[in-house]
Order: sequence, then C-alpha cells, then structure tokens
Amino acid sequence: MSINTANEIDIVKASSSKIDTVDFENLVFGNIFSDHMLTCDFRNGAWEKPVIKPYEPFLLDPSAKVFHYGQAIFEGMKAYKHEDESVWLFRPDQNWDRFNKSAERLAMPEIPSSIFIDGMKQLIDLERNWVKKGKGNTLYIRPFMIAIGSGVVAAPSTQYRFMIILSPAKSYYQGEVKVIIADHYSRAANGGIGAAKAAGNYSAQFYPTKLANEKGFQQIIWTDDATHTKLEEAGTMNVFFRINDTLYTAPTSERILDGVTRKSLIEIAKKQGIDVDVRSVLVSELVDAAKNGSLKEVFGAGTAAVVNPIVGFSYDDTYYELPKVENSFASQLKEKLTNLQYGLETDDFGWMVKV
Amino acid sequence: MSINTANEIDIVKASSSKIDTVDFENLVFGNIFSDHMLTCDFRNGAWEKPVIKPYEPFLLDPSAKVFHYGQAIFEGMKAYKHEDESVWLFRPDQNWDRFNKSAERLAMPEIPSSIFIDGMKQLIDLERNWVKKGKGNTLYIRPFMIAIGSGVVAAPSTQYRFMIILSPAKSYYQGEVKVIIADHYSRAANGGIGAAKAAGNYSAQFYPTKLANEKGFQQIIWTDDATHTKLEEAGTMNVFFRINDTLYTAPTSERILDGVTRKSLIEIAKKQGIDVDVRSVLVSELVDAAKNGSLKEVFGAGTAAVVNPIVGFSYDDTYYELPKVENSFASQLKEKLTNLQYGLETDDFGWMVKV
Ligand SMILES: Cc1ncc(COP(=O)(O)O)c(C=O)c1O
Ligand SMILES: Cc1ncc(COP(=O)(O)O)c(C=O)c1O
Repeated sequence: MSINTANEIDIVKASSSKIDTVDFENLVFGNIFSDHMLTCDFRNGAWEKPVIKPYEPFLLDPSAKVFHYGQAIFEGMKAYKHEDESVWLFRPDQNWDRFNKSAERLAMPEIPSSIFIDGMKQLIDLERNWVKKGKGNTLYIRPFMIAIGSGVVAAPSTQYRFMIILSPAKSYYQGEVKVIIADHYSRAANGGIGAAKAAGNYSAQFYPTKLANEKGFQQIIWTDDATHTKLEEAGTMNVFFRINDTLYTAPTSERILDGVTRKSLIEIAKKQGIDVDVRSVLVSELVDAAKNGSLKEVFGAGTAAVVNPIVGFSYDDTYYELPKVENSFASQLKEKLTNLQYGLETDDFGWMVKV
Repeated sequence: MSINTANEIDIVKASSSKIDTVDFENLVFGNIFSDHMLTCDFRNGAWEKPVIKPYEPFLLDPSAKVFHYGQAIFEGMKAYKHEDESVWLFRPDQNWDRFNKSAERLAMPEIPSSIFIDGMKQLIDLERNWVKKGKGNTLYIRPFMIAIGSGVVAAPSTQYRFMIILSPAKSYYQGEVKVIIADHYSRAANGGIGAAKAAGNYSAQFYPTKLANEKGFQQIIWTDDATHTKLEEAGTMNVFFRINDTLYTAPTSERILDGVTRKSLIEIAKKQGIDVDVRSVLVSELVDAAKNGSLKEVFGAGTAAVVNPIVGFSYDDTYYELPKVENSFASQLKEKLTNLQYGLETDDFGWMVKV
C-alpha cells in the first residue's frame, strides 16, 4: 500500500507488525528496530522524495564511499510518551541544526527540515505504539546519512542516503560508571572533526575504550590531544564537574560535540540557581579537588545516557572515588529534565515539540 | 559453478565478462571494477571460508555498525604485468601488516595472510586479463574490512566482512599538483587514528580539501594539529622535500601513515647515493628554502599517485612556485621504482611477488 501524503512523503506500510515479539521490559540498547524506517536519497544535486517503508536491509555496491572513506554522520534523539498518550520530541531543531553542521564538515549535502523533522514526525506518528509510557521508556531515534555513490577515489560522493530508524530503549548504561582520564589516546584533533557527529569519531575510540574496559572502566574522559591537560568530554556524553557548589563543563569547540543535553542542563541549572561556569577544567584541578574533598560530583550528559553519575575516575594509575552526595546536582537536573520530557512539569523553555 | 580449491576458497565464476566494454585507454581512477571480488565474513570469533564470486552489490541492515560508527579500514595496492605476461604484486606483506595494524587500532579482528595475500593472488589470477602490459597500466587492488554487525550502540561489532575488489587504473592525478600547507584544519590527532588506514581519516579531509580546490589547489599538506609548524603528509601520499641535495621526509608516527611507497623510495634513494634525512621539516624551513632558492623539489609518494611532483605550494596566502629541475630526484626515483614494478630491472630488494 503506497500513500502519497500531503507533504510529499510516500508511505509503504508493513503487512504486519513485529511489536508483539518485543519484550519492552528487557531491552538491550539499540538492538531492536520498529516496523518502519524513513529513507531519502540525494542524487543529481537534489533530495528525492522521502519514503517511509518497512524496516529492511538494502543493497550497496562494494565500492560505496561510506565503506572506504567513512562519509557518514548521524544524530541521536528520543521520543517520549506523555500520560495522555501524546508523543513528543525534545528540541528536534537542535539536532537538525547539528546534523547539517556535521554534513558541512564532512562535505555532505544539508537536509531540509521538511525531511529531517517533518519526515521524523510522520514516521513516529506511524510508530506511536512503539513509544511506551512511563519515565525511562523512550523510542530512540537514529537519523543518519551515508555516502552511497560508488568509486574508490578519495573524494566526496555525489550520492547520499538519509535514513531514520527507531529503536525502543531504556537507559544506555547499566550499573556504575567509572572512567579513565585519557593521557595518551585522543578523540579529536584541533581542526579535526570532533565537533561533528561523524561515524569515524566513534570507531576511533573503540580500541582505547577496550583497553579501559579491560582495566574495569566503562568510559574514557578525553583530554585535549596536544597536552592532555584539559578535560573535554566522554565518548557519547559531555561531562560536568561539581567542585564545591559550582558546576563546571568545558566550552564546546572544534574538538567537542555541542550536546543538546549539555546545553539544556546548563539552562536548567542556571534557572535552579546553581552556579554554572563554562570553562575548561584542568586534569590537575580535578585531581586536586578530589584530594582535598572539594570535588563533589562528576557526571555525563547525553541523549542516550541522560544524566549519568560517575562514581570514580582513574588518572596516572591512581583511582579517585567520588563521595556519595545527598540531593546531588546530577539527580536534581535529571529529575527536572525528565519531568519536562515526560510532561510531568510545564515546559517553560518551550523545548518540547508534539508529534 | 562452484569450485572448492585446494586452499579452501570457494570460487563462483561470472557467467560472462564485462572486460570488452571497458576502454582501458580512458580510465577514471577507481570507477570500474573487474568481474569478480573476494568476500569473507568474520562471525562467532572466526573467519569463515572466503568466496570469490561475481562483483555485485550486497545487503546490509540499516543499523550496520559501519554506517554509524565508521568501523572500516582499507588498503591500496597494485598488480603489474611484465612483458612475459606474468603478473606481480609489490611488497604485499607490507600492506597485509599495515592492514592488521589498522584493524587493531579500530578494534577489528586481524586477518591471516592465507586470506589477505593468498586470497588476493587467487582473485588476481582469475582476473589476469584485467592487468594490462605497459608502464602506467595497473590493476588497482582494494582490500577492505567493514563492520557488518547491527545495532546502534557505540561499541565494536562482533561481525565483519573482508573484501577485495579490483579496478583497472592508470595514474591517480592528472595535470599539475599545487598544494596548500594546512594552518587550521588537521588530518590527525596525537593519540588518534592517523597512522591507520581508517575510512574516517579520509572523509575528514574532504571539506578542507574542497576549500583548497576552490582556491585552485589539488591537495593539502597536513601539519601537526597542535602547532601547525611541522610538515606531515598529504591526503593520500607521504611527502618528500629536496633542499639542496638532501631529501627530507617526516618520520612516521601515530599521526602519519607508514607508506609503502615512502619506505621503498627511501631505500632506493639511499642505494642511489642520495642523501636522505628522515626528520620533521618545519613549515618555516620550507618557506625559507623556497625564498632562498635551496628548495629544489617537493613530491608526494603513494601507491595510487606513484611519485607525484608538486609544482608549488601556498602558505599564509603566499604562493611559492618550485623551480623546474633537470634530472629531478622525483623522476629518478619514479623511474627506478616503476622499472622494478614492471620487471624492467632486476629486483635486488626482493620486493616483487609473483601471482
Ligand atoms: C561525542 C558525544 N558527546 C556528547 C554527546 C551528547 O550529545 P546530546 O546531548 O546532544 O545527545 C554525544 C551524543 O549523543 C556524543 O556522541
Ligand atoms: C594518508 C596516506 N598517506 C600516505 C599514503 C601512501 O601510502 P602507500 O605508499 O602505502 O600507498 C596513503 C595511501 O596510499 C595514504 O592514504
């Protein structure tokens, strides 16, 4: 069945839904996908008509540029269901904007909001049953773009595919998160692509993260690659540090992803009267603060992980455990953010967008 | 037709060849592929049996890790036909070794030489007609590995596909090559993946290269990302500088690809009695040498481009043109290297390997 909708998206519906086979209480992050996906190709200098159709594999030529030159970018978002069954997105304009910045940095075409945002809404509208009520339940949204043009010559593709796939998800990390402060490996170069949500930034972290995992740490907090003295961000989260009662986080830069959760938490914290200082925190400051007891909290912030308290960090082979804090900033901010997202508090910021 | 050969590679032959449709005199680099490819999957912790079969597109899940996290590496090699119709590879062990180093850095499985080298030989043996005689004619070989496991969670895949595809090729660059010296954008971070032939390293260069192209330059010579004072390499070539009669090239490092052409030229140059100094050349040295006339040559070296003279460079908005040199090091070294590769001189180094 193919319906050409008002805003020019073709919809081909799946003949049946696999939703009844899914155990929504025991989800592994990013493992199960909903019945439909959106796909839209860029050819001859223009985006073609998007299609919503059954989730399925697709064919690519072995010489497709995405395989050889890593021309691939993505976004990570979530849909939330409120008590009245309505479905909402959180600041989708921010992700759309960042997607286009990533596209520019990777020499890929920008995409209009009529495809990125309106297409996403239509897809999610079709998949409303996949969004479950109750805090912690979400439908994770993965828009991405890959170079599908063929040819093994290191130059931008002329053909691209934009897709949106959906995966029901609970929280990203299970259990405690301990981190290592990077002192050799790095995530991003000055003048590199660290600020883009580019596929290549992630595989670059797998090996160092594996080494960290082997030592019993879940994540790495990256430092600047030139001196390894400034704390930057984690693999899929920005990072906040609470020293005494001030909340610090690094300014975004060419090397750091401009996280939507990060910028939202900064606004929420300020509104709550928390003292926020956006500046680079030095590794030496962190270690000193941990030693003299002024370091109260470290936490990660990102769409997938939401707000993720870090229980301790290792630097230079010494492990520093963080204190257990009553009424932590992390829990206050997480509460406020998720209340907004799940419609449990009025959205004074105007961040929520209805599907 | 499926034949299980002695060394455990299944061969499925194409029903017909497309070779007669190819204009071997007018090839665009990396655009046309031979009739067959090799493919081999890694699952459950082991490499399965490789298959040589007709070149064709293949299916991947939209959540395949290569699309989202850029877990993808490759190599670039060439096959050469000698006058007696025999077909040869140039130092394939070096590419195999580098491929496995790239694999380790990207948390991908290493591949045995029985698949990488023996599989390659069998594939090329089947495609001998695609290797044309005469200097400049080659069959470009592209081994690559991609993460095919599904799931949108930033962690290494458990499933991979190794493939070899073949493309008849003449030279990579046509016309003059002018370069810009990087003063803002960078190719690689300290502690990053610059030394790996990882897909993500290439798309990262597309945007800055596009900016360079718009100013009339074909390539960028990258500098260290921290200070932009040290000359490193170009996008797909290592770089040599001749100041007076000494040949300089940067030492390989975490940021620089350990090029097979580079290391071979160093050996050839030394044998020819050329004074070679492997050390970082500063941008300021290059500019000074250009100004005082001691800079005689700059050239790139890589499998695709072979030895590629650079006619001038731009730094800080000033363009420095290189002199035209009689009997240049670039042409001497290229002559010697290609003579070896095409069997026109005895291979004292023992670099050539017969298919
Ligand atoms: C490298 C990196 N930093 C930070 C974040 C957090 O960004 P956001 O809050 O927009 O999800 C992400 C991903 O989501 C990321 O991949
Ligand atoms: C970044 C980079 N540097 C240098 C080279 C040259 O290496 P080789 O001589 O092994 O081809 C290549 C590719 O071939 C490359 O991609």
